[in-house]
Amino acid sequence: MLDKKLLLGKAVADSLTENIIKDVEYLKNEGVNPTLAMLKVGNREEDSAYQRGANSRCIKCGIEPKIIELEEDCSEEEYIKQLKSLNEDSSVHGILCFRPLPKQIREEVVEDVIDPIKDIDCFSPINMAKIISNDSTGYAPCTPKAVIEILDYYNINIEGENISVLGRSLVVGRPLAMLLINRNATVRVCHSKTRDIEKISQDSDILISCMGRAKMVNEKFVKKGAVLIDVGINFDEDGNMCGDVDFDSVIEKVDKITPVPRGVGSVTTSVLAKHLVKACKKLNNL
Amino acid sequence: MLDKKLLLGKAVADSLTENIIKDVEYLKNEGVNPTLAMLKVGNREEDSAYQRGANSRCIKCGIEPKIIELEEDCSEEEYIKQLKSLNEDSSVHGILCFRPLPKQIREEVVEDVIDPIKDIDCFSPINMAKIISNDSTGYAPCTPKAVIEILDYYNINIEGENISVLGRSLVVGRPLAMLLINRNATVRVCHSKTRDIEKISQDSDILISCMGRAKMVNEKFVKKGAVLIDVGINFDEDGNMCGDVDFDSVIEKVDKITPVPRGVGSVTTSVLAKHLVKACKKLNNL
Repeated sequence: MLDKKLLLGKAVADSLTENIIKDVEYLKNEGVNPTLAMLKVGNREEDSAYQRGANSRCIKCGIEPKIIELEEDCSEEEYIKQLKSLNEDSSVHGILCFRPLPKQIREEVVEDVIDPIKDIDCFSPINMAKIISNDSTGYAPCTPKAVIEILDYYNINIEGENISVLGRSLVVGRPLAMLLINRNATVRVCHSKTRDIEKISQDSDILISCMGRAKMVNEKFVKKGAVLIDVGINFDEDGNMCGDVDFDSVIEKVDKITPVPRGVGSVTTSVLAKHLVKACKKLNNL
Repeated sequence: MLDKKLLLGKAVADSLTENIIKDVEYLKNEGVNPTLAMLKVGNREEDSAYQRGANSRCIKCGIEPKIIELEEDCSEEEYIKQLKSLNEDSSVHGILCFRPLPKQIREEVVEDVIDPIKDIDCFSPINMAKIISNDSTGYAPCTPKAVIEILDYYNINIEGENISVLGRSLVVGRPLAMLLINRNATVRVCHSKTRDIEKISQDSDILISCMGRAKMVNEKFVKKGAVLIDVGINFDEDGNMCGDVDFDSVIEKVDKITPVPRGVGSVTTSVLAKHLVKACKKLNNL
C-alpha cells in the first residue's frame, strides 16, 4: 500500500541512463568521446558528495568525467582563465561549475564567461532566459528538470493541473515554475512571505516543495489525493537526512509522494548526463 | 463613486515624468544629451502609434528621440549592421527595437546583438535573466513595469498579496510574474489551458489580465473588493478600444480598476523614458 505511493527516483534514473548509454555508444561510433568537466574550488563536503554521484553516473553512462580542483583561495582571474580554457577545449563537451563559489570569485562575472552551449546546469543567463522563453535549445538547471522527468516517468499529468511550487530560489523554484508553465500547468509560487501558506497549498493537484525547511510541509498543506514532490534536502535534529515534507504526517492523504532520500535527488545526475549528451551532439552537429 | 475606483494612468505618468525631467536636467548639466534611438522596420500602424507616444513623451522629458526607419524588406544583415552602429554610437543611450520583426529577421539572432546596457525594453536575454534573478541592474519590459509603477503610485500593497496573472506571454505575463515574486507577492500564472479559470481567479487580492481577449474577464472572475489591472488592448465588435475586462460587469465588485484606454497603456512610455535615463547614467558613470 505505502510502496505503491512512492515515486522512487531510481527507476527514473535507470530509464534515463538506459537512453543515455545508447546515445553515448552512437557518439563513440562517430568518433566523439563524451566528456564532462567539473570545476571545483576548495573542498566542501556537499560538493564532494555531488561530485561522487556525478562521477559514478558518468562512468555508468560511458561519459568521461574530468575533475579540475582549484585551491580555496584561487583568484577570480585564475578561475576565469581555467573556465575559458575549458570553453575552448574541444575534447570537453559540458562544464559543471560547483556553486556557491568562494567570495573572491563573483558569480555575476563568471556566469557570463561559461560557453552557453557547454553550460549543462544553467549557470549562464543565456540558458536561464531560454527557460522563460520556452526555448528548448538551452539547458534547465538539473534539479527542476529532475522533477519534470519524475512526473513524466510516472505518467503524472502536468497540463492544466493546479500546481503550487513552495520556494522561489534561482536554482529550483523560479526555473521550475517556468518549466511547468511551459508544460501548460497553472502554477502558483509560494514562499516565506506567503500568507496562510497551508490553506493556499491545499488546492493543489501537485504540490512541490523546495523551501529547504526540514519537515515543514505537513498534512495541513495537502489536499486528499494530491501528488507531493519533495525537493528539500535537510537534516533533522538527529542528523538524519530528510526532506521539506513531514512524511508520516502526509502519507495517508497523498496519492503519490517522492521520499527523501531516494526521490528527486536520485535523478539529478542522470539529468546532468542527459544534458551532457545533448551538448555533445550540438557541438559535433550530430 | 465610480471615479474613486479608477486607477488612471495619467497621474502615474505625470509623477514619473516629473522625476525624469529633473534627472534629464542634471544629465544635461553634466554635458550629456539623453537620446533614445527607435529602430523600425516597415510601416505597421501599431508601431507608428507607439512611436508617436514615445516621441512625445521623450520631448516632454527633454530626451532626444531619434527614429531610424528601415525598409520592410530590409535584410537581417542590414538590420544587425544598423543595430551595431547604434550600440557603438556614444551619443545614443537607449535603443528600442520595434517588434515583431518581419520574417527575414530572426529575433533569436538579433536579441543577442543589442547591447544589454542600451536595451531599455528588455529584448536581450541578459536583461530577461536579470528579472528572474531579481537583479535590478537590468531593465524589465516596459508594460509589466508599468503595472508595478501603477500599484506603487496608488499605494496598493504587493507583498504577501495573492495575485493572479492571466496570460503568460514573454513580453508581459512571464516577466510580470517574476517582478511580483521579487516584490514578495504570492503569484499564480493562469492561461488558456487553466481549468476553471473563473473560479481560480476568484481568490485573488489583485487580478491582472494580459490575455489579449476582449472583455473576457467578467464578474465571475472577481472577488469582492479586489484590485483589477487590465493590460489588454483589444477592439470590440464596434471597433472601439477595450481591455480584457468587461468593465460594466465588474465595476460594482472591484475596489480599484485600471480602465482601457487611460490605464496601463498611458504609463508605458514614461517607463521607457525612466529606463532611458537609467541607461544614460550608467553609460556615463553618473
